[in-house]
Amino acid sequence: MLFFEQEILEQPDVLTRLLQRQTGNVQRIAAAIRQRDIQHVVIAARGTSDNAATYGRYVLESHCGVVVSLAAPSLFTLYRRPPRLDSALVIGVSQSGQGQDIIEVISEAKRQGAATLAITNFGDSPLAAVADHVITLEAGVECAVAATKTYTAQLMAFALLATAWEADDEHLGLLQHVPDMVGEALGLKDTIRQAVERYRYMEHGVVLGRGYNYATAFEIALKLKETSYLVIEPYSTADFRHGPIAMAEEGFPAFLIGPTGAVFDDVLAAGNELIAKGAEVIAFSDQDELLALARVPLRMPAPLPEWLSPMPYVVPGQLFALYLALTRGYNPDQPRGLSKVTVTR
Amino acid sequence: MLFFEQEILEQPDVLTRLLQRQTGNVQRIAAAIRQRDIQHVVIAARGTSDNAATYGRYVLESHCGVVVSLAAPSLFTLYRRPPRLDSALVIGVSQSGQGQDIIEVISEAKRQGAATLAITNFGDSPLAAVADHVITLEAGVECAVAATKTYTAQLMAFALLATAWEADDEHLGLLQHVPDMVGEALGLKDTIRQAVERYRYMEHGVVLGRGYNYATAFEIALKLKETSYLVIEPYSTADFRHGPIAMAEEGFPAFLIGPTGAVFDDVLAAGNELIAKGAEVIAFSDQDELLALARVPLRMPAPLPEWLSPMPYVVPGQLFALYLALTRGYNPDQPRGLSKVTVTR
Repeated sequence: MLFFEQEILEQPDVLTRLLQRQTGNVQRIAAAIRQRDIQHVVIAARGTSDNAATYGRYVLESHCGVVVSLAAPSLFTLYRRPPRLDSALVIGVSQSGQGQDIIEVISEAKRQGAATLAITNFGDSPLAAVADHVITLEAGVECAVAATKTYTAQLMAFALLATAWEADDEHLGLLQHVPDMVGEALGLKDTIRQAVERYRYMEHGVVLGRGYNYATAFEIALKLKETSYLVIEPYSTADFRHGPIAMAEEGFPAFLIGPTGAVFDDVLAAGNELIAKGAEVIAFSDQDELLALARVPLRMPAPLPEWLSPMPYVVPGQLFALYLALTRGYNPDQPRGLSKVTVTR
Repeated sequence: MLFFEQEILEQPDVLTRLLQRQTGNVQRIAAAIRQRDIQHVVIAARGTSDNAATYGRYVLESHCGVVVSLAAPSLFTLYRRPPRLDSALVIGVSQSGQGQDIIEVISEAKRQGAATLAITNFGDSPLAAVADHVITLEAGVECAVAATKTYTAQLMAFALLATAWEADDEHLGLLQHVPDMVGEALGLKDTIRQAVERYRYMEHGVVLGRGYNYATAFEIALKLKETSYLVIEPYSTADFRHGPIAMAEEGFPAFLIGPTGAVFDDVLAAGNELIAKGAEVIAFSDQDELLALARVPLRMPAPLPEWLSPMPYVVPGQLFALYLALTRGYNPDQPRGLSKVTVTR
């Protein structure tokens, strides 16, 4: 079995392990953070980890009421003009814990007296060594170049941090259901394996989500780029309708992420506008109305609260990337021109 | 003459007028802001204005040392869970001043006692009415659906705000040279008109920039999408090399934005990697080394400080969008399926 496939399938176990091993640690970190007068949060990350950071932004802003900024690492590294961070919590996210620019952001934050947190799969990494606090992802070694299980583990780390920070036991209880929901989403495997044939010669498209699933749109698009080399761009449905919808023409493929929740009507409206232009919709949803628009309707399990839906909803996108790459004759374990640790400054 | 063309050509005049009419006002706004204990800045915007906000983020962080977060409007509108903003300066950017979601962010910020600022082309718009302070763009009515002169005016408004806030007279003096630099960039008109022929059947590609010109990459990609319906994605060179570079293949078109400055080596490195994969480079630069890689080298005027380069550097991208649309038989004044004011919540 491919690493990529194996690691997709491991996700329920990884999430269960993360909850078991890290909940106490994250509660201690949250208690320490609550002692400080945190005015805002800065998150530094690249690639897949940056998509997880986008989710972290929504879940921390909505649950903890704190403004979150996604860092521009070049201000710390190339320009050497970092902003003031003394009243911030600064979080570095890196699967390997070796991303040099992320380490520089955390080091600078520490110099300035900010609270610092590393979210990484390696508790003994350079990133973990420099931060005050560490959440380890407990995902086991990830061998595929295209990250999957560490992404959902990063989402869970952020959900855990937000619920521990707001100290909401009910929310904490809801997290326990996520591994099963991710497991149910894996049940779409055979459906997706058959559906991808149709997209053998697809060259470009868009992935649309909004709110908590803005991150999901970015991550699914990234997986499709990394493993099938598609030119496929993620958008918030709001931004897409603000200009780029002009690209949509007859047959234009659009993935829509539409779980039950506050943004559903907006995603449905985008779906209807796309259909009116003759576009082709692939929908991930638990709602009949959106699924009915889709050439490929992928019915998701009964709804979790929307803020937890990004964990199950990325799964059909990962599976789509896996089978699409295989049907196009690519090896998703060895994407052309990529390596596991990317050195950027 | 098309509105789109006319408004591109008006940009030096618009910028000169903005500096003449708004410098005193912005200095008064900056003085009022300095009286308050601003811990961080939040900017709310959509579409082209959001690209200007990305520039605003870099120039405010680097010049004023203040962390900037680009707002997620859905937390204010659909989810009704806005974060705490009482120690923030909250800036709403909207050409029309009618973007409902942007108005809601500023209204909520005001309810919470934050300092608020509107950047808009209409001083009598609903957005201007709700904010404490207003910078008007002085751009005259913009008739083309695809914004150009209001974009560069928004960049200038942010540059003016940053220099007034840091109270650096030398920086303020440098702003006076920008209209001429933008005028010089317009001199590339005929070169670009001839160069676009080659891209008549181009379907997709990427636009790469970094740092201050991360915004430029986004804005050029947006213009190409809006007027030529290309699937063309903007990236930071750092993020691109972290995964999406896997898309690049023989003939893959990539626009590179490479002014002299701190990020130049990173852009050049991306250019060399792309050439190694057989990609085709269109370069906007004042540096021979990058121009030498390009199939279409567009030599930009002698360097301004890098933080001001986004104003001249977007211009060849706007011209490229104009002539490419015309050579493909599209009317850039009437992009399919777009209107000037987009209602999103």
